[in-house]
Parts: sequence; structure tokens; C-alpha cells
Amino acid sequence: MSYNLLKGKRGIIFGALNDQSIAWKVAERAVEEGAIITLSNTPVAVRMGDTAKLGEKLNAEILPADATNVEDLEMVFSKSVEILGGKIDFVLHSIGMSPNVRKKRTYDDLDYDMLAKTLDISAISFHKMLQVARKLDAIERGGSMLALTYVAAQRVFYGYNDMADAKALLESITRSFGYILGRDKGVRVNTISQSPTMTTAGSGVKGMTDLMDFSERMAPIGNADADDCADYCIVMFSDLTRKVTMQNLYNDGGFSSMGMSLRAMKQYSNGLDENRDEEGNVIYG
Amino acid sequence: MSYNLLKGKRGIIFGALNDQSIAWKVAERAVEEGAIITLSNTPVAVRMGDTAKLGEKLNAEILPADATNVEDLEMVFSKSVEILGGKIDFVLHSIGMSPNVRKKRTYDDLDYDMLAKTLDISAISFHKMLQVARKLDAIERGGSMLALTYVAAQRVFYGYNDMADAKALLESITRSFGYILGRDKGVRVNTISQSPTMTTAGSGVKGMTDLMDFSERMAPIGNADADDCADYCIVMFSDLTRKVTMQNLYNDGGFSSMGMSLRAMKQYSNGLDENRDEEGNVIYG
Amino acid sequence: MSYNLLKGKRGIIFGALNDQSIAWKVAERAVEEGAIITLSNTPVAVRMGDTAKLGEKLNAEILPADATNVEDLEMVFSKSVEILGGKIDFVLHSIGMSPNVRKKRTYDDLDYDMLAKTLDISAISFHKMLQVARKLDAIERGGSMLALTYVAAQRVFYGYNDMADAKALLESITRSFGYILGRDKGVRVNTISQSPTMTTAGSGVKGMTDLMDFSERMAPIGNADADDCADYCIVMFSDLTRKVTMQNLYNDGGFSSMGMSLRAMKQYSNGLDENRDEEGNVIYG
Amino acid sequence: MSYNLLKGKRGIIFGALNDQSIAWKVAERAVEEGAIITLSNTPVAVRMGDTAKLGEKLNAEILPADATNVEDLEMVFSKSVEILGGKIDFVLHSIGMSPNVRKKRTYDDLDYDMLAKTLDISAISFHKMLQVARKLDAIERGGSMLALTYVAAQRVFYGYNDMADAKALLESITRSFGYILGRDKGVRVNTISQSPTMTTAGSGVKGMTDLMDFSERMAPIGNADADDCADYCIVMFSDLTRKVTMQNLYNDGGFSSMGMSLRAMKQYSNGLDENRDEEGNVIYG
Repeated sequence: MSYNLLKGKRGIIFGALNDQSIAWKVAERAVEEGAIITLSNTPVAVRMGDTAKLGEKLNAEILPADATNVEDLEMVFSKSVEILGGKIDFVLHSIGMSPNVRKKRTYDDLDYDMLAKTLDISAISFHKMLQVARKLDAIERGGSMLALTYVAAQRVFYGYNDMADAKALLESITRSFGYILGRDKGVRVNTISQSPTMTTAGSGVKGMTDLMDFSERMAPIGNADADDCADYCIVMFSDLTRKVTMQNLYNDGGFSSMGMSLRAMKQYSNGLDENRDEEGNVIYG
Repeated sequence: MSYNLLKGKRGIIFGALNDQSIAWKVAERAVEEGAIITLSNTPVAVRMGDTAKLGEKLNAEILPADATNVEDLEMVFSKSVEILGGKIDFVLHSIGMSPNVRKKRTYDDLDYDMLAKTLDISAISFHKMLQVARKLDAIERGGSMLALTYVAAQRVFYGYNDMADAKALLESITRSFGYILGRDKGVRVNTISQSPTMTTAGSGVKGMTDLMDFSERMAPIGNADADDCADYCIVMFSDLTRKVTMQNLYNDGGFSSMGMSLRAMKQYSNGLDENRDEEGNVIYG
Repeated sequence: MSYNLLKGKRGIIFGALNDQSIAWKVAERAVEEGAIITLSNTPVAVRMGDTAKLGEKLNAEILPADATNVEDLEMVFSKSVEILGGKIDFVLHSIGMSPNVRKKRTYDDLDYDMLAKTLDISAISFHKMLQVARKLDAIERGGSMLALTYVAAQRVFYGYNDMADAKALLESITRSFGYILGRDKGVRVNTISQSPTMTTAGSGVKGMTDLMDFSERMAPIGNADADDCADYCIVMFSDLTRKVTMQNLYNDGGFSSMGMSLRAMKQYSNGLDENRDEEGNVIYG
Repeated sequence: MSYNLLKGKRGIIFGALNDQSIAWKVAERAVEEGAIITLSNTPVAVRMGDTAKLGEKLNAEILPADATNVEDLEMVFSKSVEILGGKIDFVLHSIGMSPNVRKKRTYDDLDYDMLAKTLDISAISFHKMLQVARKLDAIERGGSMLALTYVAAQRVFYGYNDMADAKALLESITRSFGYILGRDKGVRVNTISQSPTMTTAGSGVKGMTDLMDFSERMAPIGNADADDCADYCIVMFSDLTRKVTMQNLYNDGGFSSMGMSLRAMKQYSNGLDENRDEEGNVIYG
């Protein structure tokens, strides 16, 4: 269903790999809502993934680029302005990758070159986008810049590793640059902190299935999925949230405000049962 | 402009006094977006204010009620279901009043009966609404309950007095009841934390003009006004934010994420100038 | 072991019922560290509990008082100043009770008179103490006022009920009054947010054993107990934290900064095992 | 005055440049409280600063090291264990530097190699310390690791530039590594978020004098100075805070919990006076 919320708006979506990607759904919904867009992803992802299909479907040009490379980003923004016929109203940054996670380096055995890469790819790339766009004067007054993050920036989830630090950095960049773009051109910069989502990236996170189960039972309304996230992105790109900026917005069914739900505790207590004596007290190893 | 975001939805708006009220704007926008609504306010406010005019304009029935009175609230919810022809999709709680502020009792000289009233009117009334609505089974699955708050719940603003405590309580009730309504019926419960707004209520806050100036210069995009707030409320009532719950959402041009802006500091430094020696150092008392 | 951290300081400890009470441990530690103190509790608690024993042991006068009653508090503060021979350097507020919890009224079926009592006893009593003390000019410059709270003020724990709202209110009062007392006399006002603790009060919380197990496995250093809390209180009463004010300080082994620990997840996953197919995927009901 | 809080404890203090440095005061206080320590700073700082003097005074060996260099850190930790005769109980990380700030690159014109340096020096160095120390098994059970930070990690202060992002990263590392060290050996990892302090580093921050004035008037108890910070560090190194971990602890006279104080507003309003009409309304440019 469409409300025409983005009628006449121009956007760039970074990070749509395949139809599991949040960015994919956002691209679809943005076009549905009346926007015209370009798509960008790494050259490898463009070759390996289904981005081309999406581009065809949405009539959106694909601009392969390394989001850590300033020249590449200059190309994406200047070409997008050219292709879309005007300044950019919205950007989605849905990019994250940790070589340490991939190489199974635990957090107490990080490789520091890899950490630098994690931060560059997953966080600093957003600064680069915003700095490039500003220097090119490529952002429309009142525009909306958005990046995706996870509650691990606030609380430790074992196994999320140096991606947690990258997300904390990403959220700080959001605030820091939000000040500048807000002051100058009324441009919003925000993050959406999304439930764990079974994307290609998400499936790489350690113990993802159990984590999603825990998260689902903790969150009163359950996990938000990629479609829910796309809807929220649309709202943040629209003119209805023009004074919302420098915020981290949870789209998580309430997970972030939960300490313990009855449902999750029941499941947890099940796990305790085998360690209980006949009076119901937990027997500690 | 309308997007039809609330087409077919039924709502109740509490607290529209006159055309300065945020609730007034929300009512107008809700109807514009396709909703049908009822309006409620205290009998005194209904007599003294312009609620009747709004009711006529929007073709909305007015249900005078004391929001601290459970029976009154039962009447509002059951009549609204009847009048609107079905369960309620959204509610706005825009109610707040401090007898201590009115009677100029400072925070270190509170009257405790008045404090109880401040809390009852400004915070507990939201619990009463939700409890009544739940008991009457008057809320539609996936509905959205919303209350307005202020950043004084997190940080002290001199002169805001016991309203700060009321807002903190209101936000806690939002989380606590959000868990229950989310779990049971996928109902969202949130607060919007709004910039200082020059409503009839707002104009009672001590030093409001200077505070708004400070706030305007601190916030990169400037203060959000009642229209901005109405837009955000619409978004939160819509189906596009169905997994957003138990959150406090800042609609403040970025104020809440600012420590000090250049604009505000310039103004502040002006105030220091008269206390500086010739080398620019501040002369303290 | 004693460091003489409170040598020559005068304090009032509210809420020591028996040797399980946190306030009991704080009283003991305060005296050990060189302070002289008075003890206060409700007349009923004084009759039923072991407060008298503690008074004897610590050579501390017991002042029975209803902490919701302003006259009673005036008596406690003026008598304490008299008995201890000077203004009060520190106060511990360790008071909390919910009639709704006692009467097993769930959060969606609260009795509102009882809610008013919960708030009055558990939160507003702290305001009353501070207001009374200030009016009597009974607080020493640079003093330290402390109340105990729980992370349920920030996140929902099912079954904690209206105590969560009371704690949120308590923390707001801490900030609001902290501004006034800090400005006037350099007095600190803070809360310590303590791990779930198996006191007489704590044991009334629904599912306490399982909650403590979950909390213990989530917190990297494990739950803080009453002794740990007493140590932290001493630190906050001492002269070593004179610029720390209006803060909520977690004493919880790291629980508040955890999203999911490996230990807790293992236990949780045990609970899932019975619902798994042979490939390890969770079978949802 | 000494309480013997650190009797028999072994520590490493990073970052003492001269007697304005917070680390300098911490070193002095730690020794006063009974600890034995080593000092570390960059080779340049050791040559240019007064670290040698401090070393003599405190009878503390100086270990010049680049805190971004893993081998250097290995040397510092293994030598310290050797010199001090046992595992390390506490570490202070008081290190921060932004080449972008030094070279007057504004936040919308960052040099990305410099940003990488800012992050490496000011944040990742803490990870390196902890990872090195853990691999060498150089930390005593129940130890305490501490880093200094600033509220700019949460809110934007114009001119603080990429140091804000570094501080956000530092605080995330604190949580992430706190989980591991807490779980393994009951080791605490925390940050203290200090008032703006007129150190050699602090004096490089843009508009520092005015910022300190604003901060002083906002904070009810006024800015915390280096001595106040040293006291708080001692407390965090002591055995009295053994369950406090993964926290960001404000030592700021209440600044972080303030929205607007009367004192600051008066000063601010002074700055407005010249822009007012005769009725006291602000005339906007």
C-alpha cells in the first residue's frame, strides 16, 4: 500500500544485496511511496548479489562504489544528483562488516588492522558520505540521512564483537554530523536501531537463532522484521518528521525497554529445571 | 496535505483547549488523514475553551470528562466505541497541570496534596485511561497510545518544578503498560518529548520566552512547534510504526542531543562580556 | 576493615528492618567507618523487626517515624541534629513498599489509592525528607543524600508492578532536588541502583529466585549483595565523591550494560532444547 | 589526607604530563593511598613534560611507550609486573589527542587518516592495553581499569570535533571489554566522565574558557577539578566498588543531569538584553 509519502523525493540506498536485505525492502518501499532512487553497493556485492535485479525492477541505476573510498562516494553523489535531476532528499546507510567476526577473532584477540576496517566500513563510511555530500552541496534542504544500527551499541551482546564498537561510533557520528547538517540546512541525521534481523549479514552473528528467539520473547510486540524497518525508514524520510534529528530510534517491538518478560523468563526457567532440587531451588554447579 | 495515513481509524484526543493546543492540531491533522475521532477535556475546559468550535469543525463529538476519574474515563471509552462504531485505534494524552506551579510553590516548598494532584492529573491519568480501555476491551489490536512529555523528565530545568517528576512518572507508566498492551494485543504505547511550545499551558512555565530562545539556538533545526508535533503524532498513530513501542521519542530539532551549540554559546558569551577584563577573561563576582 | 572514611560524620539511616536489610549493613559499615548515626523506621517495623538490636550494637538512637508524615520527619531530623550534636552529613533512604504488590493487584488492575500509597511511601517520602531537612537547615554543607533504586525504573521487569513507576519517580526527585541542594550548599543527591537482593522486601518480588539467577548469569561480575551495596554507600557518603550528584549509580556487576551474556544464553537455550527439531532449529508452538 | 584505600595495590598510570594533568593528580593520590605505581607516557611527552619529576617524587619508574603500539604496551605491562612485584590491580587511561583538532580541520572537513589516529590514540589504545594485559595475564583478580571521558560522547559540544566520536568509541570498548574481564576475573572496567578541566589538553579545546563558565554555572555543585577527579579514581580503584563495572560515571557537579539552571539562564539572558524591545521581548535578527 502506498501513501505517496515520498512523492517527488530523490534518494540513495546503500547496501541492498538480496531480497533478505533491509536496504532492499527500503528501496522497494521508497519507490512505492513515490521516490526516485539510485542504488549503491560494493563492486563485489553488485557482481555477486541480486542488486541488478532490484535495479531493473525499480528502474533504479546501480552505482558500484566502495563506501570507504571518498572518490567513489563523490561519484555516487554527483552521479545521483545528475541521474535523479536534483539534490538528494534522503540516504540510507545499511552497511556493516567486521573482518574480525569473519575470521573468528574474538573480542579479546582482535586484529587491529581488521578493527580499523570494521570501523571504516561500518561507521566512518557514514561520515564520509555526509562530508562528501555536504562538500558537493548535494543534499536538499530538509533532507533526511539515515543509518541502521543495533542495541549492542548500548549493551553488550556476547559474540557481537567489534561490531558493537562500530555501532557506537556510528551513532556518535550521527549526532556530531547531525548538528552541522541541521544547523546549515535543516537536514536530519538519525539511526534506526533494529531488532536482530535474519539477513545475509545477520546470519553471520554468533548464536543468531537463539538470540532471535530470546529477543522475540522479550519484546512485547516481537521482533521487527525488514518490512517493519522499511516502513519506519519511509516515515523518517518523509516530511512528517522534519524536527526529529540526532536520535537513535528503536524499532524493536519494545525490546530495548525490557528487563525481563514473562515469556522469556518461562523459557529461561525451563532451562533451569534440570538444575533444580525437589523444592524448586536452583542447584548451582 | 493529506496522505490518508489514518484512513478508517478511530481515535480519542484528550486535551484540546484552543487553537494553540498541540492536541488541537493533532485532532485536525488526524481527521485530515482520514480518521474519525472524539474529543475529551475537563468540563471546565469545555465550557471555557474553544473545544466546541473544534468539535463542530471536525464533526467530532465532545465528551467532557475528568481524566483522573475512572468512571468518567469509562464513559469516554465506551461512548467513543459506540459513536465511532468500533474499537479505538489511537489515543492522545495531552494533559498536564501542576497546582504547585499555579500557586507558585517552589520545589523546595511543595504542598504534598498538590503534588499528588500534579501526578494524578499529569501522569496517573494515562494509566487510568489504559487500564479502563483494557478492561473494556476498547482498544483495537495494533493500536497506538501516545502521551506528550518534555525533556525535563531526564534533565533539570529550573522552574519546571514538580511537572518534571510527573513527566518521569508518565514515561515510566508508558513503558510499564506498554509491556502489557504490547504482549496482549500488539498495541504500542509511547511518549513524544516535544520542544517547549507556546501553548496556554506552556506560557505558564517560568521564564518561558528565554527558555524558548535558548532551546531554539541550541537545537540545530530549531524548536519543533505544535504543527511539527501533530505530524509526528500522525506517524505514530499510523500503521508504519507498528513495532515502535515503550519509547520516548524526541521531537525537538536535536535539542536533547546537544551539549552546546555555537549559536547558543555566542548568545551566552554576550552575557559574559560585561564581566570581562580587557584581555577577555571572565571576572567572577 | 575500616578506612575511617566517615570519621566525625553524622548520619541518619532509614529502613533497617533486620540483618538482611541493606540499610542494616549500611548502618554497620557507616559506624565502622567512624560515623555516628541515628536509625529510623516505621513504628510497626521497630516493634516487629530487630532494629532495637541494631541500635544497641551501634549505640544508635532509634527514632520511630512514618516517612510519609512531614511532622514525623521533622522530629527525626531535629532530634538527630540534637542527639548527634550537629548538622547531618548523610542520609540513606531505603524505603519501598507497594500495597498493590502485597494485595496481588496486577499492573493492569491497580487500585489507585494503593498506587498513591506506593508512590508516597517509596518515592515522595524522599522529597519530604529533603524538604524537611532543608527547611530545618539540618543538612551540613557538602553532605550526601542517597536513596536505593532498581533498574526497573529504566526497563520493564514483569511482576515488579507499580514499584517500577515509584522508582522512576524517586530518581526524578533525586535530580530535581539535587539541583536545589547542590546549588545552595554543595549537597549531593544520588541513587544507587542495586542488583536484586534477597532482603525481606526483595523476597516479596514475583519470581525472585529465577530473576536473581538470570541477573547473576547476565552480570559479568555477578549480582552485588547487601555488603557490596553498603560499601558503595560509604563511598558516596565520603568526601571522595563531592562533585558526584544527580546521578543514578549502578551497583550490579554490570547487569545494566548487558544485552545477553554467554552464561545466561546457555541457560536460556537449555530451556529451548525441548522445543528443537533434530537439526537444532527451534520449533515454535 | 590518606585513608589507605589502596594499600598494597599495584597500578599503572598512563598520561601524566605535568602538574595540571589529571593523571598527575591521580598518581599522587594513588601513592598517598598506599599504592605502588609505574608511570607511562609517550617518549616525546616524557622528554618534554615533567613526568621525570613526578617519578622521582613518587618513587615511580617511568616507562616511555606509545600507547597505540602493542609491543610497547607489552613492555609496559610486563615490566610493571616485574617492577611492582606482582599483577596489576589498577590502570588509568588518561590519553586523548586529535590531529584534526590540532590542524584545525573542522568536523565537516576531517582528514580520514587523522581521524583514524584520533580513534587509535584516544580510544583503541584502551582496547590494546586491556587485550595485552589479558594475554599476559597481568591483571589481578578483582582489579579496576579506568579511562577518562567527556559528556561529548552523549551530546554534541561544538568544536569538540572528532574527539566526541573517540570518546563514544572509548565508552563502548569499556563496556565490551568489561564483559570479558568481569566474567573471567571479576575485573571492573569503567569510565569517569569528567567536567571540562583546564589541563594542557583541555586548553586546546575551542572556546574552553566560555565553555567552562557555562558548565560551572549549569552544574549545581560547579565543575569538578583534577583533584576531585583523582579522588573519584581512588574510589574506583579501591575494594569498595567491586561490583561497579561497565559504567560511565559522571564527575561533573551535576552538569549531565541539567537542562538549564537559573544561574546559567541569567547569564544567557544578559546576552539577550541588547536584543530586547522595551517590553522585554526578544527581537530576533
